[in-house]
Amino acid sequence: MHTIGIDVGGTKMLAVALDPSAPGQLLAEHRVPTPPAGEGLIEALVELVAEVDAIVGTPASAVGVGVPGLVDRDGVLYVGAHLQRVDRLPIAALLSERTGRPVVVDNDANGHAVGEHRCGAARGVDDALVVTFGTGIGAGMISGGRLLQGAHGFAGEPGHMVVDPAGPPCPCGRRGCWEQFASGTGLGRLGRDAALAGRLEAALVLAGGDPDEVRGEHVTAAARAGDAEALAVLDELGRWIAVGLANLVNLMDPALIVIGGGVGGAADLVLPAISGQISAEALGHGRRPDVPIIAAQLGERAGAIGMALLAAA
Amino acid sequence: MHTIGIDVGGTKMLAVALDPSAPGQLLAEHRVPTPPAGEGLIEALVELVAEVDAIVGTPASAVGVGVPGLVDRDGVLYVGAHLQRVDRLPIAALLSERTGRPVVVDNDANGHAVGEHRCGAARGVDDALVVTFGTGIGAGMISGGRLLQGAHGFAGEPGHMVVDPAGPPCPCGRRGCWEQFASGTGLGRLGRDAALAGRLEAALVLAGGDPDEVRGEHVTAAARAGDAEALAVLDELGRWIAVGLANLVNLMDPALIVIGGGVGGAADLVLPAISGQISAEALGHGRRPDVPIIAAQLGERAGAIGMALLAAA
Repeated sequence: MHTIGIDVGGTKMLAVALDPSAPGQLLAEHRVPTPPAGEGLIEALVELVAEVDAIVGTPASAVGVGVPGLVDRDGVLYVGAHLQRVDRLPIAALLSERTGRPVVVDNDANGHAVGEHRCGAARGVDDALVVTFGTGIGAGMISGGRLLQGAHGFAGEPGHMVVDPAGPPCPCGRRGCWEQFASGTGLGRLGRDAALAGRLEAALVLAGGDPDEVRGEHVTAAARAGDAEALAVLDELGRWIAVGLANLVNLMDPALIVIGGGVGGAADLVLPAISGQISAEALGHGRRPDVPIIAAQLGERAGAIGMALLAAA
Repeated sequence: MHTIGIDVGGTKMLAVALDPSAPGQLLAEHRVPTPPAGEGLIEALVELVAEVDAIVGTPASAVGVGVPGLVDRDGVLYVGAHLQRVDRLPIAALLSERTGRPVVVDNDANGHAVGEHRCGAARGVDDALVVTFGTGIGAGMISGGRLLQGAHGFAGEPGHMVVDPAGPPCPCGRRGCWEQFASGTGLGRLGRDAALAGRLEAALVLAGGDPDEVRGEHVTAAARAGDAEALAVLDELGRWIAVGLANLVNLMDPALIVIGGGVGGAADLVLPAISGQISAEALGHGRRPDVPIIAAQLGERAGAIGMALLAAA
């Protein structure tokens, strides 16, 4: 008895097969490219399931799929993040019909959170936040041992928490969303702002001299070479990450925060400093217990593993 | 079989007695002043319980107490909001010892939320936010039919979500907390800022001509008289309320938001406009269902009723 979990990323889809009673040992692992525009998604998923079935040798009993975007409790993708053209695509129903078995679809960050909660860094912790700082911000909230899904399945989008109403516009329609500051995208923007203000010479050289071409990786590379201006931009990134995480501590009171994602390649430079900042900003700091902040353990497989486990639930 | 619920406010303590199987009908209701500095709190609560017992004629089986501040799952008040000198006061243990029966203690806003969820505006709604805009912001989050408490019992403090890191300092130690903008206190501050900038003549007259003396009620009074500048400040207040509530919608995905509190006496002027703003800011707006926003039904009794019900659980 095994299930398949699939994590649909921006460029590739990663599938795993596992026995839910022994999720630490993968029965199969397989990667294929994500179809470019979304409309080929169902066909690609059907093929991927068949390929994993062939690797394992027997068909999986159920399938879980994590996709970027808002997914309702019936597995309908309302708004795709990378899959821009998708609008209310009933992925679970379509894939279930095509594969002849139960299919669960959820937001990819929820899959990550379930993976880390069930067999990763948050194992055994009933109240945990799993936050991934990649191009954007993904989050899954474990509350009382369960994934917090909300009324429609749309809960857990702190990336679109406004932290500065005068901030830059976000594709979601708001201004100053946390994701505009505290992500790989945010690092690039902080870097361009610093370069335009003449405060980022070394990174600007790496970007070819054009402030508008500064990306997060230029800031990170200059910082690794010891450049003080680039390190100051990373400090700024860290402060924004801490502001949002402290907001989440005040809201959710987690016992643990698990952090994943590369943060524009700067994770190891940025994350060690923020733990103390968050505890210092939590309501009642100094009297309440500090919140440990640790690294995700399952890496890129977290989402697929979590979705395989959600499919078995 | 009945329980007592007590809501400890800034100036008064309100107690009710009710039968949990028929919570709509109160067996007793009694008010006494809140002791000034916190240290007389236990004694005052013991007396209040005895007085309610005398009104009902038989002793209650359990007592619930809602207090402003951070309360852990064992009923220890870590940080009092009005009860400034309180530090880790084990209210539940002390009151249980003195009254000889089980005592539950929780944050007052959690009591409000349970009251509105069990017999008020959020009855039958499994995922609801109950937010009170008074001097500060209180909130209780119902998730999957249960009060969301977090790892230690400290969850549900969106008033200390930073929405502008360059904003005014908050007594909690952060800057630009939502409570500094979207509350009765926030309205006063928005009013003083407008008066200092020469944009609030009518309210300034009501405040005696000193911009530093402008309070929320001056703004509200001028707005009720039709003053355009005061109405603009209320618009600003409404925008801040909407920013924070839309943040909570993106995080929690409630099916319903229940709003209580006077918002500096301006609730009826401010709240009707914000419903559309919140739905327009939610991630995936236009595709996802709008979130209804309705008024709390139980008024000042919500907290005491909720705590009586939590005591019975």
